[in-house]
Amino acid sequence: MRTSRLEAFSDGVLAIIITIMVLELKVPEGHTLYDLYETTRVGLLTYLLTFVYVGIYWNNHHHMFQLVGRVSGGVLWANLALLFCLSLFPFTTAWVDETHVAQIPVVIYGINLLAAAVAYYVLQTVIIRGEGPESPLRAAIGTDLKGKLSPFLYLAGIIIAAIPGTGHVGAWIAMGCFVIVAIMWLIPDRRIERVLREHDAPG
Amino acid sequence: MRTSRLEAFSDGVLAIIITIMVLELKVPEGHTLYDLYETTRVGLLTYLLTFVYVGIYWNNHHHMFQLVGRVSGGVLWANLALLFCLSLFPFTTAWVDETHVAQIPVVIYGINLLAAAVAYYVLQTVIIRGEGPESPLRAAIGTDLKGKLSPFLYLAGIIIAAIPGTGHVGAWIAMGCFVIVAIMWLIPDRRIERVLREHDAPG
Amino acid sequence: MRTSRLEAFSDGVLAIIITIMVLELKVPEGHTLYDLYETTRVGLLTYLLTFVYVGIYWNNHHHMFQLVGRVSGGVLWANLALLFCLSLFPFTTAWVDETHVAQIPVVIYGINLLAAAVAYYVLQTVIIRGEGPESPLRAAIGTDLKGKLSPFLYLAGIIIAAIPGTGHVGAWIAMGCFVIVAIMWLIPDRRIERVLREHDAPG
Amino acid sequence: MRTSRLEAFSDGVLAIIITIMVLELKVPEGHTLYDLYETTRVGLLTYLLTFVYVGIYWNNHHHMFQLVGRVSGGVLWANLALLFCLSLFPFTTAWVDETHVAQIPVVIYGINLLAAAVAYYVLQTVIIRGEGPESPLRAAIGTDLKGKLSPFLYLAGIIIAAIPGTGHVGAWIAMGCFVIVAIMWLIPDRRIERVLREHDAPG
Repeated sequence: MRTSRLEAFSDGVLAIIITIMVLELKVPEGHTLYDLYETTRVGLLTYLLTFVYVGIYWNNHHHMFQLVGRVSGGVLWANLALLFCLSLFPFTTAWVDETHVAQIPVVIYGINLLAAAVAYYVLQTVIIRGEGPESPLRAAIGTDLKGKLSPFLYLAGIIIAAIPGTGHVGAWIAMGCFVIVAIMWLIPDRRIERVLREHDAPG
Repeated sequence: MRTSRLEAFSDGVLAIIITIMVLELKVPEGHTLYDLYETTRVGLLTYLLTFVYVGIYWNNHHHMFQLVGRVSGGVLWANLALLFCLSLFPFTTAWVDETHVAQIPVVIYGINLLAAAVAYYVLQTVIIRGEGPESPLRAAIGTDLKGKLSPFLYLAGIIIAAIPGTGHVGAWIAMGCFVIVAIMWLIPDRRIERVLREHDAPG
Repeated sequence: MRTSRLEAFSDGVLAIIITIMVLELKVPEGHTLYDLYETTRVGLLTYLLTFVYVGIYWNNHHHMFQLVGRVSGGVLWANLALLFCLSLFPFTTAWVDETHVAQIPVVIYGINLLAAAVAYYVLQTVIIRGEGPESPLRAAIGTDLKGKLSPFLYLAGIIIAAIPGTGHVGAWIAMGCFVIVAIMWLIPDRRIERVLREHDAPG
Repeated sequence: MRTSRLEAFSDGVLAIIITIMVLELKVPEGHTLYDLYETTRVGLLTYLLTFVYVGIYWNNHHHMFQLVGRVSGGVLWANLALLFCLSLFPFTTAWVDETHVAQIPVVIYGINLLAAAVAYYVLQTVIIRGEGPESPLRAAIGTDLKGKLSPFLYLAGIIIAAIPGTGHVGAWIAMGCFVIVAIMWLIPDRRIERVLREHDAPG
């Protein structure tokens, strides 16, 4: 099977996920700047963060499938599993938003991010296995430092937000971890890899 | 007419169906794990089941149209009838969810699954008729054991859920039937066919 | 400009219009067949009718653009005007539904149908003018009996529903007119044209 | 990277933005023309204005990418930034609508329009830089009078709506500025440029 329709379907799902979150943004009840601030101060930030995450996944998905010629049934299902994880983003984002960044919702948001990362890794692995030893995708990924670092940052955020009694402080530190991962992926590849190489040169 | 635009339109509709269901997931009112469990314990399962069903239809639709060269007006309308049945999934899923898997909603959900299966069968038949005796689709489908078995499992589920007084037990057994059909389609073709052949070898 | 992206964008908008209407279907509050009947008896019918209308427009749009090679800026805007009219279908359908087919909502629904038909006619005319005297679209349309008959049936429905005091009877007769137009477009071309030719042979 | 998938994803997002706004149109509670007028007199106008704006962006995006051969990672992110700004249109439009065109919501709506214009300009600049001195896009844009005039009209609208105490009068004058920009982009290029040339001939 060619990849064009898998890409078109994924684009459709990602376009909807990235856009329906705006429906969660409640319209302020009053008409002052303060009403706007009160209603959107959390919602707009979490919307932006999740928007960037969906953008990163679309971006990486786009890059990955440019190296993929043909797909098997297994790839279709691994791709659907990724889309399922991503489709829960609007739900977990809305919970973080409506509880004003409470601890447990942030833990669940982090687990959602981690699940999407795992699903992406599984999809990548299924494609590479199908392509055999001369897979161009395997060659392109290389050491994949960002892909290996992200789960640890997600886990750090999840654990920090899960410590009982840390309240909003713990939750915001966790959100900070998730923001760092997003920024790490936003910075163009060569630069971040050079930065990382300085830190773990022998690896 | 070429099939590219029919496929693009179907992809769009399926992408929306599979994604808007997440809007039905109510955000928990509290911020504890228990609130999350209470709010989503049914909703998340039914969402997952319907997500898998839409994924199966997209998958099969994708496979089928790779064998189809050109389409007539009849195929367009048979395809729209299938999309109409599938577009009711979010509605029937939400009813099952909000009644916490009550009997009648499960019956209606089963009828919806059955209607989609019938619409898919009609679409397949319209395509094969249009292609004439040398239809490559007819050859590819073969005995179509899964396609023939599914309606009986849907019917079994519908009848079990419709027996008065069985309550949630009957409804859950019916949901089990629908889960079995989904799993049957998820397992790659060759394996399931070998399993089925052992059971009905003379057929 | 090539037409591929205009078609893709239109497909996206039409796919969303045809699908979001299902969000208007309220989930029954109880869990009995009677609850389902009470909640959906009007909504399901109007959803089906509007679904068929959007399907007809997608179908005709699809056919029309298969004959169009390149498009100008004017065609893009005529197309957007058509999409705007169609995007109001979920709104006018919901009003008909929530008032249980009251007179004025049916009048507005009819005006919406008429506006979409006019926008479609304008789009067709803009394309033909751009193509000049040897337009393949002009040749393909021919006498366009269905296109000429539809506005009169819409107008008949609008006028009947607007007669004060006819209540639900007038509104349902008007809906009948709109159903007849939909059926007329559903029946394959040659048959309906033969039927019409018998009635207005000299024309 | 080729531009086809970037265009498809952008089309998907724009199609959703332009369509979900219709979900904001509240269905009138009564069934008379007066109920319809009361409920939609503001909402329909703001919906139409934002629909036209999204249409203009789609139109310009479509034109621009016909001149673009290949895109870099920076273009993908500049494009996502534009889509983010556009995705806030349904939110800011709904606020203007629900406050019946109050001052601050109109200021925020104007800032949203300005932000989208800036994001579009950034996207255009990123593409031109990537293409180097012989960029066909740079040649096609020319003096870009409309692109340079629009921000000033947005700013004028924002400032007028922000003057304390002007109330609905100030807000409506600001909306008038935004309508003028939309009309300016709707009129085909050559005509507006001739009009503008008469006014600033020496420039």
